[in-house]
Amino acid sequence: MTAGRIRSRAEFDRWWAGRHAAGRFEVTRIGLDELTGWHFDDATGNLVHDSGRFFSVEGIEKRVGGEPLRSQPVIHQPEIGVLGIVVADFDGERHCLLQAKMEPGNVNILQLSPTVQATRSNYTKVHRGARTRYLELFTGPRRGRVLVDVLQSEQGAWFWRKRNRNIVVEVDGAVHAEPATDDYRWIPLSLVWELLRTDNLVNMDARTVLSCLPEPVTGDGATAGALHSDDSVLSWFTEAKTWCDWHARLVPLNQVRSWRRTPAEIAPTGERDFRIIGVRVTAGNREVSEWTQPLLEPAAPGLAVFVVRRIHDVPHVLVQALPEIGLLDLVEMAPTIQLTSAEDAADIPEPLLKDVATGGHGQVRYDTLLSEEGGRFHHALTRYQIVEVGDDFPVEVPPQYRWLTTRQLIALLRHGHYLNIEARSLVAYLHAL
Amino acid sequence: MTAGRIRSRAEFDRWWAGRHAAGRFEVTRIGLDELTGWHFDDATGNLVHDSGRFFSVEGIEKRVGGEPLRSQPVIHQPEIGVLGIVVADFDGERHCLLQAKMEPGNVNILQLSPTVQATRSNYTKVHRGARTRYLELFTGPRRGRVLVDVLQSEQGAWFWRKRNRNIVVEVDGAVHAEPATDDYRWIPLSLVWELLRTDNLVNMDARTVLSCLPEPVTGDGATAGALHSDDSVLSWFTEAKTWCDWHARLVPLNQVRSWRRTPAEIAPTGERDFRIIGVRVTAGNREVSEWTQPLLEPAAPGLAVFVVRRIHDVPHVLVQALPEIGLLDLVEMAPTIQLTSAEDAADIPEPLLKDVATGGHGQVRYDTLLSEEGGRFHHALTRYQIVEVGDDFPVEVPPQYRWLTTRQLIALLRHGHYLNIEARSLVAYLHAL
Repeated sequence: MTAGRIRSRAEFDRWWAGRHAAGRFEVTRIGLDELTGWHFDDATGNLVHDSGRFFSVEGIEKRVGGEPLRSQPVIHQPEIGVLGIVVADFDGERHCLLQAKMEPGNVNILQLSPTVQATRSNYTKVHRGARTRYLELFTGPRRGRVLVDVLQSEQGAWFWRKRNRNIVVEVDGAVHAEPATDDYRWIPLSLVWELLRTDNLVNMDARTVLSCLPEPVTGDGATAGALHSDDSVLSWFTEAKTWCDWHARLVPLNQVRSWRRTPAEIAPTGERDFRIIGVRVTAGNREVSEWTQPLLEPAAPGLAVFVVRRIHDVPHVLVQALPEIGLLDLVEMAPTIQLTSAEDAADIPEPLLKDVATGGHGQVRYDTLLSEEGGRFHHALTRYQIVEVGDDFPVEVPPQYRWLTTRQLIALLRHGHYLNIEARSLVAYLHAL
Repeated sequence: MTAGRIRSRAEFDRWWAGRHAAGRFEVTRIGLDELTGWHFDDATGNLVHDSGRFFSVEGIEKRVGGEPLRSQPVIHQPEIGVLGIVVADFDGERHCLLQAKMEPGNVNILQLSPTVQATRSNYTKVHRGARTRYLELFTGPRRGRVLVDVLQSEQGAWFWRKRNRNIVVEVDGAVHAEPATDDYRWIPLSLVWELLRTDNLVNMDARTVLSCLPEPVTGDGATAGALHSDDSVLSWFTEAKTWCDWHARLVPLNQVRSWRRTPAEIAPTGERDFRIIGVRVTAGNREVSEWTQPLLEPAAPGLAVFVVRRIHDVPHVLVQALPEIGLLDLVEMAPTIQLTSAEDAADIPEPLLKDVATGGHGQVRYDTLLSEEGGRFHHALTRYQIVEVGDDFPVEVPPQYRWLTTRQLIALLRHGHYLNIEARSLVAYLHAL
């Protein structure tokens, strides 16, 4: 059987157009007071699901010592979800089983998603939907050969310590050649890398799982030609964690200052940032056929840039150790430049990086506008860029930055808590290079 | 100069007796209402330092979904401290520069401690003490060659997400042969391993740093002869994290149920557990000469046992993936058997492990009563044991357990969030084997 396999970009486009045509999924913005199944807790003001599960919107506060610095709303989802991709070889080429999945927050609703993308509430059926397809290939006696299995973080600016299980399993293509439904297709990995260059097509969950795919390591090992040894990178990263003199804690949403709750939304009173809105979703192929939910809507697109340059003829990527308020261990390695919707390129303190961010320095090798998690965020876009610089970009960098080789980055992805979600999206590009 | 070097156990004992004699350090138990520089916050009931820094006693709550299960007091210290050991070669043998350090909670006050053991409050002088000796060897331009540098967790039953920087640096022995004061000595690593077998001598901070010392890896690599590949171990550990269906959050101390605050202490109203007490300390060689502080006092000693057996002639250690309420990522690898002061060996569900814990199965190879962190805990003792079992102990184990080789355990210690503090104390033993 080969009907389930995509062989070319043209074939992919036909399938994708068919999925769009088949979609019956409408998203309407509603007020927070129109949400059903959700309520504001009397004592805390937190926006919670009636089941006590799923996720909640609470407050988060940044503190130095005992002193509060600033607070904001945050999405709290303590459960660990599964983001899983099934791979198999067909005709000697690795293929990924990917899914055309609708999510309410995506600008275009439908995006290319992992084989399985399920919260614990999904797969334990807290909201009483259908069973999660293909879950049995990732857990239990029928699971495939595990290539990757690691907990990774998500947006530290918007989530409170969220992490998901990123897992890739390899199965026998002959057994699973025919996808469960027309929403799934086997796509050659080489085509997946190509699809990454299309705006708003490969979703965040697929990108983070793909970024964790191990690279075959040649005899020289991961450190070959690297400016800094692996031990030196780990030591730099450990030290960078100690520079951060603030910490973060959850607070009741009604204690968050500089934000205002109206019947319609929760919005900042001052500076540009995100807001919490409500949507009603009517869907055909999701687990339940109609629901309402809150979403986080950023005010503007973000920017994530990896600066790459050759050092002693080996390509290196410049990462920064960046504290983000919602990260489990506060600091992870982030893109060279990372701006949320609340930040402007004009505010970047390093002149050279400001030039890179505004297109005044370096060669833009990749430039794609991609969506962040459409199940929690509304129209959250980030411009992802790989910018190549030359010898006029200094090898000496401020202490919060470090040059790593691509292999060093990918080797760190066997473990959690190292690369943040934005960096991982960019690593997916590097795989493609 | 060689006056600063210890050459034998007898020489160590003489130095140690001298340090005891020189000590001027008294600890008196006082009521919480007699603490100076500390107060209970009006709104939360949290016990906090007047500076807002240092540490606080707050509440922690275990939840499933939105439902509270149980709550308890917890020590919250968001700062990252430094636990550092300086090593150097003398006459071709590796030596550690260790410190005779007094801590108020130790049963015997004085224990053998890392070269540097400093909270961020210490080394940034929040409580206005003297500078931290040798700190310049761990950070800044004068630092030594880094052998280990990793953030590791501490007691998940009593701390809220505490972690410290475990760091080992190598320096030129000729330059640093003469210690700064008589509280420091260069001790051969082989003698340090031997000292580990003495009750209440090597403190917890020294043990965790020593456990992270890298082992020279032979040509076969860390996985040689291992029952499970490294990737399989990581996948098992990731899956184990998803089994835990509860999560934990800080709550105000005055919302903790089943505990009672009196002028004297904070104590459980029901089951045996720990209490929060106050002490007054008068000291000569600490950063400040007199202070009061709260300490956590467990009701009984804990137990931590590594079961080891040869599998296909390669020694393996049985670890468990154990969720603990205060751990950053909830689950770390713990000793085969780990009982806090609130738990009894009689309650261990697996009959064979209950037999091991009560001395009815296996050969006890190491058995030492050691102290946990004397700066935060009062008379907190744990019995550490390595128990060797034979072929009558099954290789097949329940899913939360896994056999790892010593090398696999040590390799994981390059990264944080894998082995908990009790397991690391036992790994220090394994180094000694």
